[in-house]
Amino acid sequence: MIDLSNELAIGIDIGGTNTKYGIVNHRGDILEKGDLRTDAYPKVEEFVDALYKAVKPIIKKNSNETSIKGIGIGAPNGNPFTGTIEYAPNLRWKGVIPLCELVTAKFKLPSVINNDAKSAAIGEMTYGAARGMKDFIMITLGTGVGSGIVVNGQVVYGHDGFAGELGHTTIRPGGRKHHGTGMHGTLETYASATGIAITANQLLDEDPDQESLMRKYRREEITAKVVAEAAEKGDKIAQDVYSFTGQILGEALANFVMFSSPEAIILFGGVIKAGDLILKPTREHLEKNLLPIFQNKVKLVFSELKEADAAILGASALVWEMKEAVTG
Amino acid sequence: MIDLSNELAIGIDIGGTNTKYGIVNHRGDILEKGDLRTDAYPKVEEFVDALYKAVKPIIKKNSNETSIKGIGIGAPNGNPFTGTIEYAPNLRWKGVIPLCELVTAKFKLPSVINNDAKSAAIGEMTYGAARGMKDFIMITLGTGVGSGIVVNGQVVYGHDGFAGELGHTTIRPGGRKHHGTGMHGTLETYASATGIAITANQLLDEDPDQESLMRKYRREEITAKVVAEAAEKGDKIAQDVYSFTGQILGEALANFVMFSSPEAIILFGGVIKAGDLILKPTREHLEKNLLPIFQNKVKLVFSELKEADAAILGASALVWEMKEAVTG
Repeated sequence: MIDLSNELAIGIDIGGTNTKYGIVNHRGDILEKGDLRTDAYPKVEEFVDALYKAVKPIIKKNSNETSIKGIGIGAPNGNPFTGTIEYAPNLRWKGVIPLCELVTAKFKLPSVINNDAKSAAIGEMTYGAARGMKDFIMITLGTGVGSGIVVNGQVVYGHDGFAGELGHTTIRPGGRKHHGTGMHGTLETYASATGIAITANQLLDEDPDQESLMRKYRREEITAKVVAEAAEKGDKIAQDVYSFTGQILGEALANFVMFSSPEAIILFGGVIKAGDLILKPTREHLEKNLLPIFQNKVKLVFSELKEADAAILGASALVWEMKEAVTG
Repeated sequence: MIDLSNELAIGIDIGGTNTKYGIVNHRGDILEKGDLRTDAYPKVEEFVDALYKAVKPIIKKNSNETSIKGIGIGAPNGNPFTGTIEYAPNLRWKGVIPLCELVTAKFKLPSVINNDAKSAAIGEMTYGAARGMKDFIMITLGTGVGSGIVVNGQVVYGHDGFAGELGHTTIRPGGRKHHGTGMHGTLETYASATGIAITANQLLDEDPDQESLMRKYRREEITAKVVAEAAEKGDKIAQDVYSFTGQILGEALANFVMFSSPEAIILFGGVIKAGDLILKPTREHLEKNLLPIFQNKVKLVFSELKEADAAILGASALVWEMKEAVTG
């Protein structure tokens, strides 16, 4: 048997502003990491050059040439079928970017790409709360709401690679309009950090005589974090914001459970810093909206990965799964 | 290579009143079929005896002993993981029934069971509109609304075997109460034949001065079929019933598409006899509620299997898939 325990993977997480990278072993230890600006490079080729200059030294330092299995990249609109980034609204590189091809040519290593939420799900399955699970759903609650779905131990891509846009499913027909998509009543308009801030302002407006710690902030200063802090201090309106958010999230999750009957739903992202404020009402309304055969079965838990490292870990985990993917 | 083209499968579809059976080849031809009463046998052992007496002669006639690969059974609450029927509300046999064990002992043939909607999906994948597809969703629109989901060429069972209860997902929070589950605003309360009849009576009540062909029927005589016939004759209220039903169904399907991004959604069951009356508004509202990346991609089609044969075909198709299943 070949000993794979020394194999390493490079994980690269490309965000609109920053790119993080790290070198990771099979246990999910990040041996070394770093970052560079994404938005400093108008051309993707320049970005790949800069990435190479940054990453090559840590590859040299932490490995011999044979022990790097490949490079995993998490990126907005990353398409694992084609190895490209496609029309990512928050990146400077427009159109279809053949990133895996460029990275592989530069590094002489196989590379694989996936979108952020699916990378997070694979990271959780490899190193985190979903270890050993064959059926789970990862929901990322950040500025937006993303998702990665695993069925039978495989990420669900669908026929075109775009499956798992659960943030854009409708949960309140005719409800709040999404600032970006124009759709009404989708999960993201309520359960994202952005949605929580909107709900807070709405509840403050609806009941102007009710005292609230949040009234000392200007409208645009009220963030999910401000709401959580106020709620923890006993602020009634702030607590109502999380009850409402959890109700909608719980109802949406119940629908997802009746689709794929996962062993667990794993919540991830900035919004989960609110802890029980979001978890309790979500769990209550999840259970309330399930058929009896699904009740009291599905685990609703927070991610076990440190948020700062999760993106690198998720990207690196793509490498261990690489056999099925396009490698550029 | 072994020639499998002569292999045959037995398909058995157990309903609350009748059980249908047939002997089927790999192309989906039913060589011979028959039926018996399900509800005539208070004990499941008596039912299996009667089934054996009925089916054995057609096995003998159509095959030599070696060419029957196995017996596939579609049944309400059929659990493929355990080979049992569990707490089926519309069968006389209560509790957990080890049907595969009994059938295999009697017939000396491997057997496999699944629920009706998942059998239908496998039948469609094997012989019907989903041939060659790896990602699709089958929606059965009958007295209730069932579903069978296929991802990566595999039926989605979830961690407990119960995945795919899309009829019980909420699409109108706080909406119409389901007579059986007590849940509010679930898809089945609107898109089933039962739901269509309820909608018709509601619209007739809401606008008592509007003429309608349906007014010659008593409330309980108004079925989905009556509504479809009236709509085809130009009846305004009846047409509105299908527009409303299609809108809700389309909205629900859009959510399902953003979950698993299927190549097709296949509609099956009595309700599809209404043809374009149901298909057109469903397609319109499906497209309207999709993110742009999903629009104008998913095929929304009717089943290609004859309804009278589909249950037997679906059950028989379980046999060709048998390697992964419990065989009693």
